[in-house]
Amino acid sequence: MHVLGYDRDPVSVAGALADGVIAKALDPTLDGIEEADLVVFALPVGAAVELVAHVAPRVGRALLITDLGSTKRSIVAACEAAGIGGIFVGGHPLTGDHRSGWNASRTGLFARSTVFLCPAPSTRPAALALAEAFWRRLGAHTECVDAAVHDVMVTWRSHLPQLAATSLALALQHAGITRAELGPGGRDATRIAGSDADMWVAIARDNADNIAPALAAFETQVRMLRSALERDDDIMLRRMLYATQSWSNGDSLPG
Amino acid sequence: MHVLGYDRDPVSVAGALADGVIAKALDPTLDGIEEADLVVFALPVGAAVELVAHVAPRVGRALLITDLGSTKRSIVAACEAAGIGGIFVGGHPLTGDHRSGWNASRTGLFARSTVFLCPAPSTRPAALALAEAFWRRLGAHTECVDAAVHDVMVTWRSHLPQLAATSLALALQHAGITRAELGPGGRDATRIAGSDADMWVAIARDNADNIAPALAAFETQVRMLRSALERDDDIMLRRMLYATQSWSNGDSLPG
Repeated sequence: MHVLGYDRDPVSVAGALADGVIAKALDPTLDGIEEADLVVFALPVGAAVELVAHVAPRVGRALLITDLGSTKRSIVAACEAAGIGGIFVGGHPLTGDHRSGWNASRTGLFARSTVFLCPAPSTRPAALALAEAFWRRLGAHTECVDAAVHDVMVTWRSHLPQLAATSLALALQHAGITRAELGPGGRDATRIAGSDADMWVAIARDNADNIAPALAAFETQVRMLRSALERDDDIMLRRMLYATQSWSNGDSLPG
Repeated sequence: MHVLGYDRDPVSVAGALADGVIAKALDPTLDGIEEADLVVFALPVGAAVELVAHVAPRVGRALLITDLGSTKRSIVAACEAAGIGGIFVGGHPLTGDHRSGWNASRTGLFARSTVFLCPAPSTRPAALALAEAFWRRLGAHTECVDAAVHDVMVTWRSHLPQLAATSLALALQHAGITRAELGPGGRDATRIAGSDADMWVAIARDNADNIAPALAAFETQVRMLRSALERDDDIMLRRMLYATQSWSNGDSLPG
C-alpha cells in the first residue's frame, strides 16, 4: 500500500511521516488525490462536508470514499449530491478518547471497536463490501445502519454524554473549581470535556435537531433531582438513585 | 492492635474476618465498644448521625472518634450536642470509586489520597493530632478544614459531578439506552452513577442546601448550550466548548 496524507497541522504530518505510516505528504491542494483507490476523510464533520464538492470531481479512479465523522446524514447527503454516492460509505468508529492529532494515534486503536457504516442511497454493493473488509482488517466489528437512524442513536450514546460533561465543566469553571481539585469521580465525569472543541462544535451543529431535545430531557432530570432535594423528598430521591444504580449494574462491560 | 468490626451486611463482616483484618465481629448492640480506644464510623451520613446518640454514653475510654462521611456539618454538630465533641474529628477521605462493601476494599486504598479533617468546636488538640497520625500511617495527606467550608467545597468537587452523572444516567435510561451501548466517553461520564444509592441519598439530603443551588447553576449551563444549538449560534458554541477545553487542559493530574 502507498499511503498519502494531509493535515492542516504540520506536526501531525511530520509525525506520521517520521513513523513511516504515510509514504508522502500531500500539499493543501491535495494534488495527487486523483490516483487514490481509497480516500478517507478524517476531519471535523463540517469540514468534511465542505471538502466533498472540492474532491468529488477528482476521484474518478477511487473504489471507495469513506469518512470517520460522528454524524452521518450531512456527509451522505453531500456525497450523493456531488455524484459520488455510488462509491461512498460513511464510517463512524466508536473508539478513541478525549485526545486528538497524530500523538493520540496508536497501533490497534480500532481493534475490537464497533464501526457504524452508513451507505448513501446509491452506494454500490462493491463499495460497501470494500468498506466492511477495510474495517475488519483493522480488527473492528462493523454494523450497517441508515444515516438518520445512526444520528439519533449517537445522540444518546455519545453526544448527550459529551455535552453533559461540557456543561458540568462549565458550571465548575464558573464556581472557580479546577479539574485538579476534583475527586476521582469528578475526574471521571469530566474526562471527555477535554475533547477537541472544533470537532465537537461541528458535531453539535450538524446534529442539533437531535441533540437539543435530548438536552431538554436531561435538563428535566436535573430539575427533578433539584426539586426533590429542595422538598427533602426522600421517596423521590431514593427512586431516582436506585433507578440509576440498577441501570449502571445492567452494564455487562468491564468498569 | 485489636480491631473489632460491625456491618449490617454479614458478607462484609465475614470477608473482613476471613481476611484477618478484623479480629472479632461485634453484634448489632455494639457490645464491646466500651473498650475501644479509637472508634471509626464508616456508614452513610444519616446513619452515622443517628448512631452518635446511641454510642456517645458508651465510649468513655476512647481517645478519638472519627468517621468517613462525605458531609461534615451534621456529624460535627451531633457529636458536639452528644458531649463527645472533645474527642471527635470528622474525616473525609477523597478516594475509592463507585463500588462499596468489603469487596471494594484493598491494601493501599488511602495511600496518597487527600483526607479532609473537620474538628468540632470543642475538639481537643490531642484528638486532632491523633487523627492526623492515624491517616498519615495509612499513607494519606490530611487537610484540616472547617465543617461548613468543607461542605461547600465538596458540593462542587464531588456532589455536583455525582448528581450530574445520576441525571445523565436517568435521561439515558428513559431513552431506552443501556450503559453497555455507550461509547467509551459515555461510559466514563456515567461510571460514578453506579455508586451506592443509600450512601448518595444520605449525602444529598444532608447537603441539600448547598447542592440545590449548584444543580441550578448546572441547569443554566445545559440550557445555554441547548439554546445556542437551537439558534445555531456558532460563536456561543465555540466560546463554551473552547472554555471547557482550556479548563480541562489546566488539569495537572494524569488523565
